[in-house]
Parts: sequence; C-alpha cells; structure tokens
Amino acid sequence: MTRPAPEHPVLQLEKAALARWCQGDPGGFLAITAPEITYFDPFLPRRLNGLAALTDYYEALRGQVAAETWSLENPVVEAGEEFALLSFDFHSVSRGGEHHHWHCSEAYRLKPEGWRLVQTHWSLAPAP
Amino acid sequence: MTRPAPEHPVLQLEKAALARWCQGDPGGFLAITAPEITYFDPFLPRRLNGLAALTDYYEALRGQVAAETWSLENPVVEAGEEFALLSFDFHSVSRGGEHHHWHCSEAYRLKPEGWRLVQTHWSLAPAP
Repeated sequence: MTRPAPEHPVLQLEKAALARWCQGDPGGFLAITAPEITYFDPFLPRRLNGLAALTDYYEALRGQVAAETWSLENPVVEAGEEFALLSFDFHSVSRGGEHHHWHCSEAYRLKPEGWRLVQTHWSLAPAP
Repeated sequence: MTRPAPEHPVLQLEKAALARWCQGDPGGFLAITAPEITYFDPFLPRRLNGLAALTDYYEALRGQVAAETWSLENPVVEAGEEFALLSFDFHSVSRGGEHHHWHCSEAYRLKPEGWRLVQTHWSLAPAP
C-alpha cells in the first residue's frame, strides 16, 4: 500500500493564499511575501519590485477578484534547504462563468520567519 | 571610485544562451538545462516538463527565431549557494521591425556540472 507524499510546506502556503485571493483578499499573499519580491503578471509592462510596490498594487485589487471555482493543477516543487520552487497550471471560473487559464511559478526562500515568496510570475495560458 | 558589481554567473550564462537563441539556435539553452526542467511560455496551454520534451519543442523552432536587436533589461539575481533566481524584462525587435516585450524568470540550480536551469517562465508583456 502506498501513501501520497506529504505536500511541501510551500504548496500548503500557496493554496491557503490562493483561497483568500480568489475571494478578493490579497492579505494571504502579502503575509508570505518577502521585502525583496520581484513580481510579474500580464498586465504589467515591466517587473514590479519590492513588497511596498506589491502591497499598493494588490490593495488596489482588494475585493475585485471573485472566482466561483479554482484549481491548482499539476504542482511541482523543486526544493533545497534554502529555496523552494513551485510551478503549476491554474484554472479559475468567474462568477459570470468565464474560464481563465494561467501559468504560475513561485520561488520561496526560507527565512527565520518561515518560507517567503521572493519571485512570483503569473501569465496567461491559452485554453487547453 | 566605484566599480560595478561583477555579474552573477547565471546572468552570464543567460546572456550567452540568449545570443544564440536570437539567431535561431536553441542549443545554448539546451546545454544549460537540467533534466527536471519545468517550462512555461505563452503558446503552451500547460507546463512542459523535462528536458526531453523541451528539446523536442526547441528543436522544432530551430532557425525560426531571428531578432535584429534584443536587450535583457533590469536583471535581478537572488542567489544562495544552491539556487539562483534571475528575472528580467526582455525587449526584442524582429528583422521585420516588430517590437516584442517579455517577462522572464529563470531558476538555476548548482549541479556538479555547473549552474543549470530548472525552471523557465517566459510571458508576454504589454508595451511600456
């Protein structure tokens, strides 16, 4: 009998932050983001740098994201003692029924206070 | 008098691989990619996994990429002893004069044979 491998802590962190994000609350991600974060998404012409800038950006979106359902698919974690890289396909359905497909890669670094995001990259994917 | 900090080795690797890529040669990237690579770009509905799949994908593009000029802009490297995370904005101009803007994040892991790519994420950016 085999048992599934336990999830790496960063995958648990990511899912918890996403659950809040998909209800319009960016606080979950902000609480696990390092000061030196570098951040990409498809709406930004250039990389966004640092937690202060990301906080401003996320807080302007507070209450605007509302996913009816979402799924984090095919997660892979490549980890050492200091860094953990998580990547996954992401699919969400808005309350209006629109399907959104994303690519996501997240780099976490282990700090004294725990695993913290140091690089986030979200991008749009064509529908499968 | 100040001198610029020396580039992290992964930035030098990236620039050398990009120089070949922009002339239609994917061999530079393939030579520095680890077997466990995970890879995203905007044309793939889902993440591509592993060097064999990436080799097939890249070889199908051999000779098709031709950038007249390109620039790797605003590079940031966050590194420890085992992993190095590189992110940058990328701008290229095709021989036909089309401008392309990209986001790129690259995760390298130090292996006995040197720094090797374990996660690559390219995405399209709006024009600045």
